[in-house]
Amino acid sequence: MSVDTSFNAAATITDADIFDAHIGGKLTVQSTMPLTSKRDLSIAYTPGVAQVSRAIAADPAMHATHTWASRLVVVVSDGTAVLGLGDIGAAASLPVMEGKSALFKEFGGLDSIPLVLNTTNVDEIIETLVRLRPSFGAVNLEDISAPRCFELEERLIEALDCPVMHDDQHGTAVVVLAALINAAKVAGKTFGQMRVVVSGAGAAGIAVAEILIRAGIGDVVLVDSKGTIHRDRDDLNNIKAKYAALTNKDGIIGGIREALDGADAVVGVSSSKFAEEDLAQMNDDAIIFALSNPDPEVMPEVARKYAAVVATGRSDFPNQINNVLAFPGIFRGALDAGARRITPEMKIAAAHAIAALAEDKLSSDYIVPSPLDPRVMPAVAAAVGAAAE
Amino acid sequence: MSVDTSFNAAATITDADIFDAHIGGKLTVQSTMPLTSKRDLSIAYTPGVAQVSRAIAADPAMHATHTWASRLVVVVSDGTAVLGLGDIGAAASLPVMEGKSALFKEFGGLDSIPLVLNTTNVDEIIETLVRLRPSFGAVNLEDISAPRCFELEERLIEALDCPVMHDDQHGTAVVVLAALINAAKVAGKTFGQMRVVVSGAGAAGIAVAEILIRAGIGDVVLVDSKGTIHRDRDDLNNIKAKYAALTNKDGIIGGIREALDGADAVVGVSSSKFAEEDLAQMNDDAIIFALSNPDPEVMPEVARKYAAVVATGRSDFPNQINNVLAFPGIFRGALDAGARRITPEMKIAAAHAIAALAEDKLSSDYIVPSPLDPRVMPAVAAAVGAAAE
Repeated sequence: MSVDTSFNAAATITDADIFDAHIGGKLTVQSTMPLTSKRDLSIAYTPGVAQVSRAIAADPAMHATHTWASRLVVVVSDGTAVLGLGDIGAAASLPVMEGKSALFKEFGGLDSIPLVLNTTNVDEIIETLVRLRPSFGAVNLEDISAPRCFELEERLIEALDCPVMHDDQHGTAVVVLAALINAAKVAGKTFGQMRVVVSGAGAAGIAVAEILIRAGIGDVVLVDSKGTIHRDRDDLNNIKAKYAALTNKDGIIGGIREALDGADAVVGVSSSKFAEEDLAQMNDDAIIFALSNPDPEVMPEVARKYAAVVATGRSDFPNQINNVLAFPGIFRGALDAGARRITPEMKIAAAHAIAALAEDKLSSDYIVPSPLDPRVMPAVAAAVGAAAE
Repeated sequence: MSVDTSFNAAATITDADIFDAHIGGKLTVQSTMPLTSKRDLSIAYTPGVAQVSRAIAADPAMHATHTWASRLVVVVSDGTAVLGLGDIGAAASLPVMEGKSALFKEFGGLDSIPLVLNTTNVDEIIETLVRLRPSFGAVNLEDISAPRCFELEERLIEALDCPVMHDDQHGTAVVVLAALINAAKVAGKTFGQMRVVVSGAGAAGIAVAEILIRAGIGDVVLVDSKGTIHRDRDDLNNIKAKYAALTNKDGIIGGIREALDGADAVVGVSSSKFAEEDLAQMNDDAIIFALSNPDPEVMPEVARKYAAVVATGRSDFPNQINNVLAFPGIFRGALDAGARRITPEMKIAAAHAIAALAEDKLSSDYIVPSPLDPRVMPAVAAAVGAAAE
């Protein structure tokens, strides 16, 4: 892939550039074989295709080898939590899902189609995908609001015998873990002794907490709009209550200020700002990931005053935490391996693979490879495939 | 399009040719724009795409112009009546649906994806497509068994505000009408004075009867596995009962033999054979369309003894009645015109457009253009679009 990693994108993109590029949509379907002769038609369609259908009817395993479905990723959304735009509905979410499908192709070498659903009912979304099951090989859930997204993903994994992943949760979590592995090295910190604050307890926040705990972080403190999540809160939904029991070992009560006091790292995955005076209370050589887009919780030039390593979600600052580092390789690796589930071990393996690619040039401004680094997808896919076995 | 119209396909296609061509499936998705720079990503995905989503949320009409959905045809099947193979299930039907989607692209210039459904319940199929409505622009129903297909199509047309067509019904009917218009000219017959026997009262047979009646045929006699359909039959489903009232004006009772006696034309769309002695009882200059595939109801060399014009569904005989003459242009014309329904008038216009293309070289061996004739789709689309207005 020919890449342009130096370009500062934001400066030169106009509204017209964006809208013109979207006219007619961003995806197109092609036949893999020519259809210009009677012979072609007789192979791809009747009468030839009847033999393939008959063969699949006799041996269902041939569905995986002789259709496109087993390697087709459906990007599924109900439009309830689209980027930072919130619940804008399925139709308005479609350009995002088309873009995601395009990324699956360009970065993962996987065919992908968007399916946007005019229902936000978890039962109905599951039912719809169960009915469509023979049409696809994997499900990427996207931009589905919390806490519905947790139940939906968990139940879909049970209902479908194929890889299912809510990327807003786990794609983010995998890249955060990758970045934190390297940031800890740069900052001279040890995972088991770190306290990490996660600001935001939605899809991304919960998944980040989950993967950090599995990866051996000393403690995580989740902070939602009401303050730190702790065992004495009586206003928690099921998933937050679960994490109240798994996090915040010291029972910190208060808000982001109290959480940051003495913390080693903070991961911002909500729009709540970080105040300078609060960041100043973090431990020495702190790590600040301000991932809210397009406006980080704190701008990098401010964060650097209080931190050894700073990362954002933006392409115009160093250390971009971008899901595209993870999801193409995770799905590709899972499908290549014939895995029926994407397990926690596969996600952690993906994070280590991403981190390893930046290791040789590690610095405070280079803790993860560029999203355009062509080494990323194959390395992640290989690690995920190995972990699947 | 470079075409090979002279090729006798059947002779040189091996099983290996067919199965090799199907490995990994027959479709692939591509991005319409490059995704190799940060700038590309910022336009096609975040942050740029957010503007497009926001614009659609504010103005739903932009969903049609700035996504791929409004021109995406979903090829939908439940696998209950696949080619001549019967109820082989959704998974085994997928190679046929992939082929159909490939034909939509190659012949209609429309993007298309297959959606195969693990349910045969009409309510559930409708419900599924209603939920997916923002994902597509038109529905091609395919290989769904009768009589469920009639109710499904009728109710889907009501439930979705977009073109919906069951191609096994109407694609076939349109091409049969086109061929019959020209066959009547060759045979020196007048539509209003013709009695046409339709052998088979499934999806295709009913739709052929419907379009011929609308087009002004003197009378149609439908024959199912129990014999002619007439008003005194007490074993008819709803749709057959409807056509009992609209056809068989003379109340012919009996089987295919009695129906053919004195008939001007016969259209075979079931696997029931035509006996020579029955064909011999047809009127002079008879027209015989033996469309069962791969084995026609009567072989053309036999049929010719009793007919002025003979057609089959096969590419290795003259006068191939092939749906690909109709459906790409019908959907393309309907979508180009922004039509919300495919009306009977649009289907009849499509048939006349197909017939007109063969008019200048009309003969008993040339009543319809070749499926590979590049004039067909634009002519059909234009006629359908004009009829939509």
